[in-house]
Amino acid sequence: MNPSGVEFTAFKVPCAEEKAHDFLWRVHKALPRHGNIGVWNRSHYEEVLVVRVLNLAPKDVSQKRYDQINAFEKILTGNGYHILKFFLHISKKEQAVRLQDRLDDPAKQWKFAAADVEMRKLWDDFHQAYEDMLNRCSTRHAPWYVVPADRNWYRDYVVASTVCNALESLDLKWPKPSADFSKIRFS
Amino acid sequence: MNPSGVEFTAFKVPCAEEKAHDFLWRVHKALPRHGNIGVWNRSHYEEVLVVRVLNLAPKDVSQKRYDQINAFEKILTGNGYHILKFFLHISKKEQAVRLQDRLDDPAKQWKFAAADVEMRKLWDDFHQAYEDMLNRCSTRHAPWYVVPADRNWYRDYVVASTVCNALESLDLKWPKPSADFSKIRFS
Repeated sequence: MNPSGVEFTAFKVPCAEEKAHDFLWRVHKALPRHGNIGVWNRSHYEEVLVVRVLNLAPKDVSQKRYDQINAFEKILTGNGYHILKFFLHISKKEQAVRLQDRLDDPAKQWKFAAADVEMRKLWDDFHQAYEDMLNRCSTRHAPWYVVPADRNWYRDYVVASTVCNALESLDLKWPKPSADFSKIRFS
Repeated sequence: MNPSGVEFTAFKVPCAEEKAHDFLWRVHKALPRHGNIGVWNRSHYEEVLVVRVLNLAPKDVSQKRYDQINAFEKILTGNGYHILKFFLHISKKEQAVRLQDRLDDPAKQWKFAAADVEMRKLWDDFHQAYEDMLNRCSTRHAPWYVVPADRNWYRDYVVASTVCNALESLDLKWPKPSADFSKIRFS
């Protein structure tokens, strides 16, 4: 896809300025302009995933975020945005293969972090959080797509065809010319 | 190129907030983070091109911008940025072909603007401004590449090979692992 129409954002651990605002502030700021496609790696859903599993926020705060997320996404779709949310699901066995590969491949070792080991121990807690997220935030206006992702080709096929179908359903047309230029000729 | 490593910016006519700052403010804000590649369509050079040709700023203001641009770009390269500036040069004849094509092709008509006709009349003024820009702002730290662009394949070849050569000259290595993980195994 032509990068000139894509606005990519990888959400990291919130920085000091981001923490000084509500959890949706940095997400709203990262929204693509109308006509462009935004691609996000992670999102506001970290707030009901890692934040919940690691108890980074009081329980009543993270609990009310499900509704806040749904309300926020409804505002966006009500303003012309189309939201596709992909949950790339890999098995516990495949995760072991991938983590081991990161350790073994010199070109991938830099991606490995000690936290990867700790997070893997919390597999079941994360899966409970995933399930709640899918149940509470897969809405008609902003559905979650659960994508079997152990095989990259199948993951790519599902995501790409979902995106293509969504684009085709928009039935996009070229914009109209800004005026009648039928008399102009460059010879 | 993977859009996740590219930060694209198309500079438009400055909006009210941009005009409320110095001319380099919005440019500095659009800078890619270290490690990413920024691709810009137009830039701060509009200040010594269209601004100069259409007399949108007092002459003494636009004149001192050449030196300010050089100083600004030197700050950037002194902080680890690599700057490649491409001037895509098309002939007056080829411009006529392209503008006519926009008028004739229903899929391109929306791109046509009445200003295209007016700007073409100022061809010679623009070329004087291009020449001054190239003479005054092609520096050792941030050179201009003048690319013959009447044929798209040749334009693409020159730009792509220049970018590739620049990337190869950086002799990039993978980052080092954040710790010694040699004892960890996922079985």
